[in-house]
Amino acid sequence: MAVAFATTAQASDELRNLAKDFFEPLPSTVPALADNIVTPEKVDLGKALFFDPRMSASGVFSCNSCHNLATDGDDNMPTSIGHGWQKGPRNSPTVLNSVFNEAQFWDGRAADLAEQAKGPVQAGVEMANTPANVLATLNSMPQYVEWFEESFPGEEDPVTFDNFAKAIEAYEATLITPAPFDAWLNGNDAAMTDEQKAGLEVFMEAGCASCHNGVNIGGQGYYPFGLIERPGAEVLPVGDKGRFAVTETVDDEYVFRASPLRNITETAPYFHSGVVWDLKTAVDIMASSQLGADLDETEIDQITAFLGALTGEMPEVVYPLLPAETSDTPRPTGEILP
Amino acid sequence: MAVAFATTAQASDELRNLAKDFFEPLPSTVPALADNIVTPEKVDLGKALFFDPRMSASGVFSCNSCHNLATDGDDNMPTSIGHGWQKGPRNSPTVLNSVFNEAQFWDGRAADLAEQAKGPVQAGVEMANTPANVLATLNSMPQYVEWFEESFPGEEDPVTFDNFAKAIEAYEATLITPAPFDAWLNGNDAAMTDEQKAGLEVFMEAGCASCHNGVNIGGQGYYPFGLIERPGAEVLPVGDKGRFAVTETVDDEYVFRASPLRNITETAPYFHSGVVWDLKTAVDIMASSQLGADLDETEIDQITAFLGALTGEMPEVVYPLLPAETSDTPRPTGEILP
Repeated sequence: MAVAFATTAQASDELRNLAKDFFEPLPSTVPALADNIVTPEKVDLGKALFFDPRMSASGVFSCNSCHNLATDGDDNMPTSIGHGWQKGPRNSPTVLNSVFNEAQFWDGRAADLAEQAKGPVQAGVEMANTPANVLATLNSMPQYVEWFEESFPGEEDPVTFDNFAKAIEAYEATLITPAPFDAWLNGNDAAMTDEQKAGLEVFMEAGCASCHNGVNIGGQGYYPFGLIERPGAEVLPVGDKGRFAVTETVDDEYVFRASPLRNITETAPYFHSGVVWDLKTAVDIMASSQLGADLDETEIDQITAFLGALTGEMPEVVYPLLPAETSDTPRPTGEILP
Repeated sequence: MAVAFATTAQASDELRNLAKDFFEPLPSTVPALADNIVTPEKVDLGKALFFDPRMSASGVFSCNSCHNLATDGDDNMPTSIGHGWQKGPRNSPTVLNSVFNEAQFWDGRAADLAEQAKGPVQAGVEMANTPANVLATLNSMPQYVEWFEESFPGEEDPVTFDNFAKAIEAYEATLITPAPFDAWLNGNDAAMTDEQKAGLEVFMEAGCASCHNGVNIGGQGYYPFGLIERPGAEVLPVGDKGRFAVTETVDDEYVFRASPLRNITETAPYFHSGVVWDLKTAVDIMASSQLGADLDETEIDQITAFLGALTGEMPEVVYPLLPAETSDTPRPTGEILP
């Protein structure tokens, strides 16, 4: 049947109609954000903040350290290293297309990217900063103050922690990566290979698309990791109960947000634990743990090929030029507070 | 006399003629490198390597971490934080225009940027990597291998640690920042303010230009820090004997390469110890320690204004897209080896 879908235009249309029940192509414009108008000024400010290591207490880490736009919006490690060389608890997810997720973080504890942006900057194991120190840093550089004024016109004191987060959200909303799968969904049969189309078919038939769907092929909905068969403790560490920490509901033990799968070929290692480096292995673990499906090697290859069609084109990023410190800028400190 | 220089075209010409005995404007093209032809392919490869944190053992640090092109080629800290949260011994100098320095590092221990590039990647307190692991990392990503082949055509095995360093050198050679002072040296009277011209005059008359001269207004020649009057131990820590470690000659105790002064307004904190954050204070310390000169406040203001004319225009940097890891890529490790 996969072969049939792959080989004729009519079959391709049929597959596309099926796929449209699960998936939506990326929009061609930056999505509107709740209570946050996206302007070029705000996007530029957000980019500066995203890349500025002085937003961390030590001056070592920026948002881009763990969500590196040179490596598809993540940091290529099991879990990130942060302030004081401490290890973060979960794998850093890609910032690319994250605006299309239902909520942010592996456990969905932030409703949107603005709320998310306030997390790592304050986390003791990440950037270890405080809102007051972020604002003192920003206020010490007249160029930043001017950029905030231009980004939040009419506000009496635009340099606030909320606006800091909104500017970052606005920038991150521009980080969207149209992929061959979008072109195919939009009607271009030649955008995916026959193997990728076969993989899409398996992806839907086996049930992967029950959780990994929508614009981001995931990023919507919360599901127990180990729905059918709990994976080993190296993949699913017993100490991290996922969304349980957010809802304190027993049903949410080991529940995580379904991972968005765009650019997944570029963002190893996989899972919240970040211990699986090989995409086929990850597909195999998902099939057995979530679906109880025993996929054969061809099917795993086909799904993996389909996932390759989700690898999109990065927007060009011109590296920002940041304002220089002044005598009023708080000094960086690598000190580790208890 | 400073006022005279500042106010007439004839006086400006006279000042320019004096200045040309000490200084040269930046060239308009990338300088030729010894034994390293600069090609667009090599520059692009070098840029990728410069920004790639996977060149460090931990995956945390790239060249750009301590020589951040968003903040004028340095990291805005007294001394850098590196692998295992260890502190480096000296302030990170800017990479901008560094190709014009006589030699690299504060003590000149590397003859050129290619030799320099091999240092931090192997230093235990910086990137803590090994040449073998760098090459294994590069060879694991076919895109990198292809880039090396294009950058070093005709070489049988182009992925070498020498070529890694040469590509980085080629990229860094493009990081040159023409400044108002260059425009003025090139004949544009309006490029500097009257105060900056007065400052230039003081800079030459007081003797600053005896050490800070040439294309980089420094970066040439080695001089004792404290030639006339040794500064306090917080500025000149007794444990760091500078070039003595390179030459093992008693005359070289506390000798350092004269700092290049381009973009100095943007690259606080100052000196190899990185403890002075205010440029005027740094000018004052230099005047007393190196020249025995007791400059008045106006003169210090004028010199500082002149230094502002050395702040140049950054080339636009498009952030690179780096190859994704493969199953063969060595895994990052934050482990601290003894």
